[in-house]
Amino acid sequence: MAQKVRIAVLGASGYTGADLVRLAITHPQVEIVALAANQKAGQTMADIWPHFAPYPNLPRLIRADAVDWSGVDAVFGCLPHAASAELLSTLKNTKIIDLSADFRLLDAEVYGEWYGVTHPAPHLLSQAVYGLTEMARPRLKDAQLVACPGCYPTAALLALLPLAEAGLIRPSNITINALSGVSGAGRGLKETNLFVEVSEAVAPYAVGRHRHMPEIEQELGRGFGAPVSISFTPHLIPMNRGELETITVELSPGRTAEDLRTAFATRYAGEPFVHLLPEGQAPATRMVRGSNHVVLNAFPDRIPGRAIVIVAIDNLVKGSSGQAIQNMNLMFGLPETMGLEAAALFP
Amino acid sequence: MAQKVRIAVLGASGYTGADLVRLAITHPQVEIVALAANQKAGQTMADIWPHFAPYPNLPRLIRADAVDWSGVDAVFGCLPHAASAELLSTLKNTKIIDLSADFRLLDAEVYGEWYGVTHPAPHLLSQAVYGLTEMARPRLKDAQLVACPGCYPTAALLALLPLAEAGLIRPSNITINALSGVSGAGRGLKETNLFVEVSEAVAPYAVGRHRHMPEIEQELGRGFGAPVSISFTPHLIPMNRGELETITVELSPGRTAEDLRTAFATRYAGEPFVHLLPEGQAPATRMVRGSNHVVLNAFPDRIPGRAIVIVAIDNLVKGSSGQAIQNMNLMFGLPETMGLEAAALFP
Amino acid sequence: MAQKVRIAVLGASGYTGADLVRLAITHPQVEIVALAANQKAGQTMADIWPHFAPYPNLPRLIRADAVDWSGVDAVFGCLPHAASAELLSTLKNTKIIDLSADFRLLDAEVYGEWYGVTHPAPHLLSQAVYGLTEMARPRLKDAQLVACPGCYPTAALLALLPLAEAGLIRPSNITINALSGVSGAGRGLKETNLFVEVSEAVAPYAVGRHRHMPEIEQELGRGFGAPVSISFTPHLIPMNRGELETITVELSPGRTAEDLRTAFATRYAGEPFVHLLPEGQAPATRMVRGSNHVVLNAFPDRIPGRAIVIVAIDNLVKGSSGQAIQNMNLMFGLPETMGLEAAALFP
Amino acid sequence: MAQKVRIAVLGASGYTGADLVRLAITHPQVEIVALAANQKAGQTMADIWPHFAPYPNLPRLIRADAVDWSGVDAVFGCLPHAASAELLSTLKNTKIIDLSADFRLLDAEVYGEWYGVTHPAPHLLSQAVYGLTEMARPRLKDAQLVACPGCYPTAALLALLPLAEAGLIRPSNITINALSGVSGAGRGLKETNLFVEVSEAVAPYAVGRHRHMPEIEQELGRGFGAPVSISFTPHLIPMNRGELETITVELSPGRTAEDLRTAFATRYAGEPFVHLLPEGQAPATRMVRGSNHVVLNAFPDRIPGRAIVIVAIDNLVKGSSGQAIQNMNLMFGLPETMGLEAAALFP
Repeated sequence: MAQKVRIAVLGASGYTGADLVRLAITHPQVEIVALAANQKAGQTMADIWPHFAPYPNLPRLIRADAVDWSGVDAVFGCLPHAASAELLSTLKNTKIIDLSADFRLLDAEVYGEWYGVTHPAPHLLSQAVYGLTEMARPRLKDAQLVACPGCYPTAALLALLPLAEAGLIRPSNITINALSGVSGAGRGLKETNLFVEVSEAVAPYAVGRHRHMPEIEQELGRGFGAPVSISFTPHLIPMNRGELETITVELSPGRTAEDLRTAFATRYAGEPFVHLLPEGQAPATRMVRGSNHVVLNAFPDRIPGRAIVIVAIDNLVKGSSGQAIQNMNLMFGLPETMGLEAAALFP
Repeated sequence: MAQKVRIAVLGASGYTGADLVRLAITHPQVEIVALAANQKAGQTMADIWPHFAPYPNLPRLIRADAVDWSGVDAVFGCLPHAASAELLSTLKNTKIIDLSADFRLLDAEVYGEWYGVTHPAPHLLSQAVYGLTEMARPRLKDAQLVACPGCYPTAALLALLPLAEAGLIRPSNITINALSGVSGAGRGLKETNLFVEVSEAVAPYAVGRHRHMPEIEQELGRGFGAPVSISFTPHLIPMNRGELETITVELSPGRTAEDLRTAFATRYAGEPFVHLLPEGQAPATRMVRGSNHVVLNAFPDRIPGRAIVIVAIDNLVKGSSGQAIQNMNLMFGLPETMGLEAAALFP
Repeated sequence: MAQKVRIAVLGASGYTGADLVRLAITHPQVEIVALAANQKAGQTMADIWPHFAPYPNLPRLIRADAVDWSGVDAVFGCLPHAASAELLSTLKNTKIIDLSADFRLLDAEVYGEWYGVTHPAPHLLSQAVYGLTEMARPRLKDAQLVACPGCYPTAALLALLPLAEAGLIRPSNITINALSGVSGAGRGLKETNLFVEVSEAVAPYAVGRHRHMPEIEQELGRGFGAPVSISFTPHLIPMNRGELETITVELSPGRTAEDLRTAFATRYAGEPFVHLLPEGQAPATRMVRGSNHVVLNAFPDRIPGRAIVIVAIDNLVKGSSGQAIQNMNLMFGLPETMGLEAAALFP
Repeated sequence: MAQKVRIAVLGASGYTGADLVRLAITHPQVEIVALAANQKAGQTMADIWPHFAPYPNLPRLIRADAVDWSGVDAVFGCLPHAASAELLSTLKNTKIIDLSADFRLLDAEVYGEWYGVTHPAPHLLSQAVYGLTEMARPRLKDAQLVACPGCYPTAALLALLPLAEAGLIRPSNITINALSGVSGAGRGLKETNLFVEVSEAVAPYAVGRHRHMPEIEQELGRGFGAPVSISFTPHLIPMNRGELETITVELSPGRTAEDLRTAFATRYAGEPFVHLLPEGQAPATRMVRGSNHVVLNAFPDRIPGRAIVIVAIDNLVKGSSGQAIQNMNLMFGLPETMGLEAAALFP
């Protein structure tokens, strides 16, 4: 058997980092050689993540600047934006799979506008491959730096790009309503993340100003071949993981929802993770919980000339750590599905 | 003190009926004289609703045809559509507050189309007052038959009617994304209502064909003074009660989201139950849980010329039983808020 | 109508304080004159509790030391232990209803042992009435200082005291397993209170060392007329409010579970809030959610000579703010149930 | 690579059967050759389990009597009690792993007493191996019929057997309080399983008469070498999966909770799935969700001479389908952990 890919995870103390470790544990061709979390350096993973109690052999947490990069083939950046770009920019022989927002936007100015900081490593932006795996395969093989998409953009772009590229929908009035499990908000100690505030409740947040909007617009603009402005309203709902987007689109003249279904069937035939549901069946997050799968479908809207596209993913897997591993597999010549075969955990 | 209103409840074995009884118990001017539920006749309320164990004096359940109407001032119809219209049509001195869909649509043919049955009492349709209380007050005073709006229409119309009537929005491309607690699906034994199927999950349902659509369109058409087609996608989310609608609208030329806020402030000034939130604060269902309150707000959309309107209610109170009691209060000359003063139950 | 009781609430920024305000809003004989919360002074209640948005006339939050006590008939202390005892000890004409642990334990040394601080006002301990309403009525009428029981002790003592006093159970091997909604843990920003950590999960906490143990033992010892040691294990379960205790007891020779039921029936006959369920029906928190009601029952254990007693309350109402209001009613000569008539909010 | 184990699943339409299929899908040495569910015969797995949409190649559901047993190496019985024993008793060359209660009790009369039916195949009882894997390894290798333990007994016996066998605890007054996710109640359409009834609520059920009691007593009696009566109270809590038991025990003279910890450390050293937590850390279901792991710990009780033992499992994995696969691995000479390596799914 080939040599394992030796990985380091920066930010192993967040939900994304933890889920990456969860997946890496059972990946047959991965060896975890370093886990970094500055605030928790010195502790074990089980100390901060009780569900890793059965895995006492995981490396102890260290500071990011204490990682010995000489033995690291790939690093997963699971830190908030602007926290690791500088460090990552110094690496020589380590491939970078970044899950933050740092390398997703092509334009450092747009980044600055939305994230409120000067980009820490703008010279790398042009090298970064936007890692929506199903769209990026040819470029992933030789990529040194992959920017994994945000969870909302992953779902939105898998649903919309094939339609935009095939000319089936118009760029106007694309309206995305997104519902996310609370893990998407991170492990930070905020009142709005407390169980009692979230449970038996629902609310939108960041109405009209969520940071995933420019990312969706950038990639969708490429698909349309022209700039596009979208409407996007995310909501936190009382569940741990999962993400569902209900998207209304304007059809190109003469097109129907059935044409969208046909486009999905064609585009995603043979895809191991993206699944068109039978006509009339609505995607649901329980179909993909804990897995790297994506389910989607299209429906006629009651307003003539429009359609409703619905897509569901697990925000931490396909929307984050799972897609990162999927990208790693391709970057290192491994089978794309390796370590990601698990079916959804239902119930 | 004046004589109490003697009420009967048809369908006391459903969530709507039970919530009506809950509210009636503490209403100082209501006396519950009959509770009907054909399938459960002979049982006590506590037998089928354990939370009524502390109220052993509630009338025992009887069959609907066993009610002695001579002593009933008002009847609340909490049955599924077409189940009670015939019976209700025979009543003489009892005012009818119907919570089913039977008397909401003006056109018996449209009713037949959407509900799949011939209307059981079409001659009553013209007498029925559509009981969206804040819009119907003048007509409620002398009404003999009030059709309480569906939960989704209640929220949608409170949000959209003032804007339509003031000419602030256009009738085109109104897109309603609705999130509802599971009590909205009723107490029926369906697999999709099981805890394990719903919990830690979300899915849309009845995409493009929910029965509340013609009702919203009918009333909204009145507001616009012209027919309107809407897009409406409801989702069940893992919570018991509560309903939130995120609505995108096209603004009339020159209008802004702030104009919508001003319209709400004007229209709902002094309303005891409808509350415009401060600029930028998103409505959330936890603000209204278990209460008759409504919270709403408007936001600029990223797509120019559009706005996002968000509204939250408790689907069983303002969306159903609470509004029914609010209507009863007006029909019998009682203070509109009587019995509905409770603040939201949070946490 | 008599003059209203003018109340102040210290600690209006916690769940207990907020629920007290919720109940006070609809209490016909209460006027809220001051709301204190040092960290939030200057803000409105709606600022920190969005569900109070419909109540703009609530007093603005002030610091506790800014309250003008001359116009306050009763103060509700909703602060953590040791935070307000000193201040409360200086009041002259204001009756004190304290919901903290400060005045529950008779012995300042035991207090020091369990709470890790020197008691701030030990001279008041002998004056305090332990406000388990159903057991304390005669002493509440003239009380100046009432110590409201903890939520766990409220449930445990209502279940056990009648049995102990009637000699039906033995003081040995009383084992209490308690399940609580997460609001019991407060609004503090702790990782263990985050939605994602709590949801779809359960765990015990403070095993063998929860601070409600000495309180239960003190009062139960009075009931038995002899010291008693109990076993008590609380668990947080994924719900907002509610508390259920499953208690195994050893029966006195010749006694049966049916004798326990008879004792409950006798002791609680006519009680407005404490309800014995029919034989064989298990108490459930959904029966009492949001209400001041208590439901209990007794069952034979499979181990001979033992029985299982089960009791359910709402931890924030009968277990906290509701019982405080119930006590206030008695202290001011009002009907005991005033403002507490609401039936449980189910669903 | 060796030939795969060809398996059939009877009862693939229940939660247990579905979770078995989920695990089998990724098991490298398993081939699913038949899936049976009489009521659903003719449908695909994706038809009844939307989370299997990505697995269109799963065999279509057939009737149990339509299975061609000649090509089946092992059958998993996931049906209710008494539903498949007769059929299973006719198999010749197929190893039986039964997850129902049919072969757990040694005594057909006790079975009849608790399950209310005459045992359908009493002659097989003596051949059945009680498949609590960690205790049954030597007998599993050559077993033809394995009776997988119930979920509650699995947790209880893993916690208590090592203590009983080592003489550290007494057989008297063993009190088990159990908390289970709702999947334990099955997919049957019962009102008590509806989301709205379960969510934001908790209740015990089958108080003093749950069918897992005789099973625990039988196996625990073996451990003690003498009959034992236990107290057992299960509760359904609002989560999908997971099970936690809080058990109070009487210590043998001179013994302490620390001795129990030592016994666990010794007995479970090297066990891949059973994990003693560090001193003072409470087991929680989130540590094991979706995995075959078990976490346990022991604590001093406040009542002298007693201890509290706490254990958590996933009711559908180690409590059911996972343990069944673990047993299959041993029965067919495969590595015990094969297909069960997944870490817990947290969040």
